[in-house]
Amino acid sequence: MSERVYLDHNATTPVLPEARAAMVDAIERTFGNPSSAHAAGREARAVVDDARRAVAEAMGVEPAQVTFTSGATEGINHIVAIAGPGRVIASAVEHPAVYAAVAARPGRELVRCPVDSDGLCEPGDILARVDEGGPVALVALIAAQNETGVIQPVGELVPYLEARGVPFMVDAVQLAGKLPVTFQPDFTIITAHKVGGPKGVGAIITRAGRELPPLISGGGQEAGRRGGTEAVPAIAGFGAAMAVVAESRIAQAYRLSRLREGLQQAFIEAFPGTEVVGRGAPRLPNTLALMLPHGIGGAALVAALDAEGVCISAGSACHAGTPEPSSTLLAMGYTAEQALRVVRVTVGPPNTTDEVMRIFSLLPEVARRVTA
Amino acid sequence: MSERVYLDHNATTPVLPEARAAMVDAIERTFGNPSSAHAAGREARAVVDDARRAVAEAMGVEPAQVTFTSGATEGINHIVAIAGPGRVIASAVEHPAVYAAVAARPGRELVRCPVDSDGLCEPGDILARVDEGGPVALVALIAAQNETGVIQPVGELVPYLEARGVPFMVDAVQLAGKLPVTFQPDFTIITAHKVGGPKGVGAIITRAGRELPPLISGGGQEAGRRGGTEAVPAIAGFGAAMAVVAESRIAQAYRLSRLREGLQQAFIEAFPGTEVVGRGAPRLPNTLALMLPHGIGGAALVAALDAEGVCISAGSACHAGTPEPSSTLLAMGYTAEQALRVVRVTVGPPNTTDEVMRIFSLLPEVARRVTA
Repeated sequence: MSERVYLDHNATTPVLPEARAAMVDAIERTFGNPSSAHAAGREARAVVDDARRAVAEAMGVEPAQVTFTSGATEGINHIVAIAGPGRVIASAVEHPAVYAAVAARPGRELVRCPVDSDGLCEPGDILARVDEGGPVALVALIAAQNETGVIQPVGELVPYLEARGVPFMVDAVQLAGKLPVTFQPDFTIITAHKVGGPKGVGAIITRAGRELPPLISGGGQEAGRRGGTEAVPAIAGFGAAMAVVAESRIAQAYRLSRLREGLQQAFIEAFPGTEVVGRGAPRLPNTLALMLPHGIGGAALVAALDAEGVCISAGSACHAGTPEPSSTLLAMGYTAEQALRVVRVTVGPPNTTDEVMRIFSLLPEVARRVTA
Repeated sequence: MSERVYLDHNATTPVLPEARAAMVDAIERTFGNPSSAHAAGREARAVVDDARRAVAEAMGVEPAQVTFTSGATEGINHIVAIAGPGRVIASAVEHPAVYAAVAARPGRELVRCPVDSDGLCEPGDILARVDEGGPVALVALIAAQNETGVIQPVGELVPYLEARGVPFMVDAVQLAGKLPVTFQPDFTIITAHKVGGPKGVGAIITRAGRELPPLISGGGQEAGRRGGTEAVPAIAGFGAAMAVVAESRIAQAYRLSRLREGLQQAFIEAFPGTEVVGRGAPRLPNTLALMLPHGIGGAALVAALDAEGVCISAGSACHAGTPEPSSTLLAMGYTAEQALRVVRVTVGPPNTTDEVMRIFSLLPEVARRVTA
């Protein structure tokens, strides 16, 4: 049994050594309740404060703008809940959690804004929808798409929506760990487990001075924005991971894009006719979505590579288990049959050139098997 | 500087070695996304499944009745949100998160059911309120009170509320780790960090067959009851802690009650006139709430003991930082002045007889200082 090759970093990332060390320290040593008025409590409070500073610095904001949550799905539900009733204008390539959060709450009417064949959303299209109908509760735009890596023009929209007083939520889950975040909408959603931190913690970044009424009310934690005893070990891991990200993401972006080039070449050689999804758009440096040639199912290739210890995905992890074609790909104009031929290969900092070489040598035989 | 003595286990508990090991394994090895269709995903899924079985077994239910949350505050908010509008009949000694969750949601009218001077709620009083007014959205009763340890007659109420079709939520956060849970209301709320697990994870236990619409909607995780990528490390720690609890809580109950007896004696000797709060009611074996004699403030004693490395609390941790008297003590008939004289001393499995002896030798000098 050879070593596993993990190429599914957009689904989740291994925990960075720095994050692991911070978590173990919080588990072993700073176990107090941050609300307690004694040394054990103060130590735990300091861990949370330090992590908040690290997350803020990596996001280019002040610590007071960071509200810790249990993850991005909570963050999205939180913003959709407090937005109140009205139209929610969202791109047609949002993470499914956005659509689920809107559908779950009465009085929110989802307005999907189309994308082009590269998966790009036109800011003018969003603004036209904002201006044309009834009250707008929220505009939602994913900064970088989880399945394709396509980067949306979020920064362009911010001043126009701000001028109109329309709340703007940006899902920066995939972007934050991979490229600097240069925009400040009302609400930016991030999560630790996509940036080398643990599952079970995320944050909402609010624009400076923006109120954030709670979805979860309790003992006044997080400045009254999110009740519940703080998840100190996970928060510690998140802070440590974001500190690494802030320092290394530019260098990693170059490195990961080279690994991705190698993988793209390997797949195209093994499966002639393979097409890169979103190739005309700016994309995350680590993400490779590939439409395989006719007759080769994405799920079949995922399974064949899994048998060889290689982890990739067909559609996003949140769709896995359901055989439906990705709504993201359908929105880009792919047919259902085409969408079911797409696989996603996403690299991360732990990946190496040796692993890419291993894929080069593995793929021809795997290709023969899934083509037969 | 001497070793710290932690006597604030109702605020939060140290992470048990078994839970720590399970968490470290999940951080280092099973980092996959449980929704992913490859080996890394399946391994993470297995960790979540195992933890669910352990929690279910400790709670005397089936795994399908366990929904993981980010903690008890989320669980309480979840149930209050799905209960819909109407009257919420709750004891006057609930955890403040219950009142906060009710106040945060329009259309919920809080009806507080009084308690006697021992902090006990009369089931007949609750039923009378259920029967006398408009539609009842929810009945909420804390199984064991966090500040006093007083145990409510939850089991007596279950059949009566079931017969009336009134949803019943029980906060078993403090009970679950210390005594067997013998009731099955519609919704039982628990959290890991009060039972030797980590902060950032909890569960809602639903009665068999009971629906649980989500508060947080996303990728269909937790059988559609709670969206968001599972907090695998924290869930692993929760499961491991609950397995220890199930095996040891009866033996620990005897052991902890003896440590508590010793501490009670130490405080009464050092502060003559000290009274045990809730002494006429059944109480958790680990919890000691003490009203100090006239002129001695609880916060002053907490600070004086903190300076000696001893962690106790005045009021519950969620109140700490606010100088207001505990609403629980006021509901029991204590005056504000009396309530501010109450301290809480709560032991846990890591505490030893040596530590109790240390308190015996420390307290007289500390008493001189805070009395002076």
